[in-house]
Amino acid sequence: MTQTESKTKVNVKLGENNYGKAEVNLMKINRDSKRHEIRELQVRVGMTGDFDAAHSRGDNSELIATDTVRNTIYGLAKEGFGSSPEEFGKELVAHFVKTGAKVTGGFMEFTEHLWDRVQVNGQGHDHSFVRQMPKRTGRVESADGKSFKVTSGIEELYVLKTTESGWEGYLLDERFTTLPETHERVMATFVTAKWEYNEGSVDYDAVWTKVFKQLQETLTDHYSPSLQNTLYLMGEAVLSACPEISRIWFRMPNKHHLQYNLGRFGLENNLEIMHVDPEPYGLMEGWVERA
Amino acid sequence: MTQTESKTKVNVKLGENNYGKAEVNLMKINRDSKRHEIRELQVRVGMTGDFDAAHSRGDNSELIATDTVRNTIYGLAKEGFGSSPEEFGKELVAHFVKTGAKVTGGFMEFTEHLWDRVQVNGQGHDHSFVRQMPKRTGRVESADGKSFKVTSGIEELYVLKTTESGWEGYLLDERFTTLPETHERVMATFVTAKWEYNEGSVDYDAVWTKVFKQLQETLTDHYSPSLQNTLYLMGEAVLSACPEISRIWFRMPNKHHLQYNLGRFGLENNLEIMHVDPEPYGLMEGWVERA
Amino acid sequence: MTQTESKTKVNVKLGENNYGKAEVNLMKINRDSKRHEIRELQVRVGMTGDFDAAHSRGDNSELIATDTVRNTIYGLAKEGFGSSPEEFGKELVAHFVKTGAKVTGGFMEFTEHLWDRVQVNGQGHDHSFVRQMPKRTGRVESADGKSFKVTSGIEELYVLKTTESGWEGYLLDERFTTLPETHERVMATFVTAKWEYNEGSVDYDAVWTKVFKQLQETLTDHYSPSLQNTLYLMGEAVLSACPEISRIWFRMPNKHHLQYNLGRFGLENNLEIMHVDPEPYGLMEGWVERA
Amino acid sequence: MTQTESKTKVNVKLGENNYGKAEVNLMKINRDSKRHEIRELQVRVGMTGDFDAAHSRGDNSELIATDTVRNTIYGLAKEGFGSSPEEFGKELVAHFVKTGAKVTGGFMEFTEHLWDRVQVNGQGHDHSFVRQMPKRTGRVESADGKSFKVTSGIEELYVLKTTESGWEGYLLDERFTTLPETHERVMATFVTAKWEYNEGSVDYDAVWTKVFKQLQETLTDHYSPSLQNTLYLMGEAVLSACPEISRIWFRMPNKHHLQYNLGRFGLENNLEIMHVDPEPYGLMEGWVERA
Repeated sequence: MTQTESKTKVNVKLGENNYGKAEVNLMKINRDSKRHEIRELQVRVGMTGDFDAAHSRGDNSELIATDTVRNTIYGLAKEGFGSSPEEFGKELVAHFVKTGAKVTGGFMEFTEHLWDRVQVNGQGHDHSFVRQMPKRTGRVESADGKSFKVTSGIEELYVLKTTESGWEGYLLDERFTTLPETHERVMATFVTAKWEYNEGSVDYDAVWTKVFKQLQETLTDHYSPSLQNTLYLMGEAVLSACPEISRIWFRMPNKHHLQYNLGRFGLENNLEIMHVDPEPYGLMEGWVERA
Repeated sequence: MTQTESKTKVNVKLGENNYGKAEVNLMKINRDSKRHEIRELQVRVGMTGDFDAAHSRGDNSELIATDTVRNTIYGLAKEGFGSSPEEFGKELVAHFVKTGAKVTGGFMEFTEHLWDRVQVNGQGHDHSFVRQMPKRTGRVESADGKSFKVTSGIEELYVLKTTESGWEGYLLDERFTTLPETHERVMATFVTAKWEYNEGSVDYDAVWTKVFKQLQETLTDHYSPSLQNTLYLMGEAVLSACPEISRIWFRMPNKHHLQYNLGRFGLENNLEIMHVDPEPYGLMEGWVERA
Repeated sequence: MTQTESKTKVNVKLGENNYGKAEVNLMKINRDSKRHEIRELQVRVGMTGDFDAAHSRGDNSELIATDTVRNTIYGLAKEGFGSSPEEFGKELVAHFVKTGAKVTGGFMEFTEHLWDRVQVNGQGHDHSFVRQMPKRTGRVESADGKSFKVTSGIEELYVLKTTESGWEGYLLDERFTTLPETHERVMATFVTAKWEYNEGSVDYDAVWTKVFKQLQETLTDHYSPSLQNTLYLMGEAVLSACPEISRIWFRMPNKHHLQYNLGRFGLENNLEIMHVDPEPYGLMEGWVERA
Repeated sequence: MTQTESKTKVNVKLGENNYGKAEVNLMKINRDSKRHEIRELQVRVGMTGDFDAAHSRGDNSELIATDTVRNTIYGLAKEGFGSSPEEFGKELVAHFVKTGAKVTGGFMEFTEHLWDRVQVNGQGHDHSFVRQMPKRTGRVESADGKSFKVTSGIEELYVLKTTESGWEGYLLDERFTTLPETHERVMATFVTAKWEYNEGSVDYDAVWTKVFKQLQETLTDHYSPSLQNTLYLMGEAVLSACPEISRIWFRMPNKHHLQYNLGRFGLENNLEIMHVDPEPYGLMEGWVERA
């Protein structure tokens, strides 16, 4: 062992912690009829509890190996996972609380990769699929393995409108404001959303589909004076359509599409030739809640 | 200037080379009617010619600045780019051969990001769009700015079938073969394709749409004994549907979906619970050509 | 405007929220002597306050444009940013609280890209630099623009040891445990850490350098019975070396290096030929705090 | 099987093709002394030959399974791989030509992840390592399994100089040139290089180290009138230092560091506050060869 400068050690203790397995890539295929159904999840499971002995003394006797966690995820996917990923998450967390001597709670997070059926002559094919871009996400956590807090979400929903959007009437900083106002611009954003539920049973799959529809439709139904206002209206639409949802959070970057300066070359540009600027971007985050 | 060991320099010369601008992110919006049309390209332009003076003597007098290349891409997008990205590429390369004293040829490469219309009540919206996953690609090159070689392509088309695929009867290596044979497996691949054209005029947009359809449909119409065979059949389908295409190349990784070993836990697994293994993957590349 | 099904709207309100600019890529060069100094930051600024009017009514009159935020970041980088990124963050947040009518607080997050001097004849060069892999991170937040909570961190520190590590004596799950025990393995992890400070002034640059050193040295000074124990010992080492730090958090994936099964081919493998498995990985998170 | 429109099939044939295994992640650890040595490679192997039967008729009988390729890579890493990755590549390709009935040639490509020893009290540690940013690459190919063409390379070498660089005297396009000239700027590039060898035996490891040094030192030893000229001088330096190398190719993006316009805010900016623009970037590619 290497010699290092002798160090005086101070007294420390373990704070909040968890451990588990991440990036478990799982596909479950339902072959009950010839029209197959598939679900593909990337799963992370984290366990919480009293793991002080392992951390501070190197005593592993109360630790479930993360390799066991992986085996369990695949095993319970066979025995359970009969409906939504959120319900599967509850099964997983409950299992580890039951089997881990020192495990008192935990969480399961997932990203679901979405597949559509391949279209042949206008029909979705029985067993051929093509991957879609947006992703479904979720997190199930529990302090006791019995009651659960569920959050569902969506990622990588990239939407854009070419008109009915502006940015004007904002606060002017004497020194640092240089941007001109406009009532006509291109607006684009890469929506990340997550939402929480009211008490009671929820059909998580059905709710997700409704939210996905609302987020897209809201883009079309108003003049947007700011990304902040559109964020709010998306929240309002979701809460109106989905009584199961208690509140919803958005992260919405403003993917700037800037009119390229063609006047220098004697050319007009009426929002026709745009520079899609990758950075820096305005970034809006916020919850919309029931009043 | 820093002192370094004195070095004896040998005689060198410039070989094949090009320079230009990459990652020019451009959106062109057609606002001629209230039903807007958008196209989003990431463009790279490279110029070839006699650039020895700049390289070997630091004499820039014959170099077009790459910033000028950027301005030109946006400027010509306004004046031209009336049909496909491939035709726009020809306009660009021809322009630089004309304006660059020492530019004799060049190429334009693009990745087109595809957008669908947002659906509202079953109708595509006039000015709201949602990004799709597959990407359209292309490359136009010319040695003289007059005649062009065009290659078109597709990337990130991720397809999967849950049955009608196997892998058996292959060569056994005495020592290193451990994989069992199967006539029932999940097959998935992330298709990259590119194709070349016969002489004559081409409607590049129409051809692309036909290829995109053929690649998906072929997945559904045969039992696949190997990814190699499916690659070949995809090529056959494309060449049959598109007389404009002379040959087509594929890169198709075998995205392995492995049956997780649940027998260890007393559970059956009839290709139901799969591990989606990110690596290592079989990788097939090949051209399919007219006989 | 598109017609959609008429929807009954429910009453909603804005919850916790912030907005600002992200991915502002800034380099500050100190040219005061011929030995230049550079710092490169990717900065995000978020502002908090009463932004209800903008969200719920589309009234922008109290909003600072995010473009103004960008200008301000570059402007204040010139006038301020005399020492660490953390102190620069305080300057930025204080500024926006002062200039934004409705801004009551906010945060600044940064990722610092680290550059070493190019070595020539054993000396670091005056003005030539080469990028390093690990990244320095930080977040400064304030509820009032006057008092600040500072968190500093490190990312992408990828370390590995080829011996003096094991994993044994862990809890056996009757059904799902299949992993054999070992007292000799390869251990590797991609360290993400962040830490908080005690009251009082801090030399953030000096502390970061000490943490960076401790995290690497700790890897070498003990037999590791688990990644959890190494996490704890890293925390102990940092808290011992840096009295300014109150507590430190780690995220440490277990980058599995698995002995490839060569026995099937009649070959021995004494931890010599390893498969570097990208997934799934054990993932440990935890705080180490002063007792 | 799904019914699709009946399609008339045209006659096609297989063109140039290869198949094999990609992203095989391998670490070899030399434990012969207590000072361990490690090498980490990501390997791809492709085989060429007459694979028509598999492609056109679904006859796999002459195909080596890619799973066998993976096993072989790990197996031969144990038995061979005694010196450089390039020599290991030759062993692999020769093996597949020998064992694959229809394999006549092939290639092996690698990316080597580089690790330094962790420093403790100024000494590199015996068995603890920390990952570095630049990557070593290479490709070995053969048409017959006996004679080989070797290309070696480097990737992700990100270098920057804060002075001794300019861009002036370039060709002005009447319409599209807007960039001002300068004799003082920041120059940065993310070097990708690859080189070929003269006949004769080569110590690939030693050559790589020399190239790595030359590329960095050249940055420091001249005023750069253009990235093209620096590319050329890097080539000259490498060819002067390494008689084994016949020619070298570079891809060098111009990572623009633009002086942010602070004049609008009444602030001077003498190349002190820079915007690190991620796109679009000038991109230079070229070979430097022996005259």
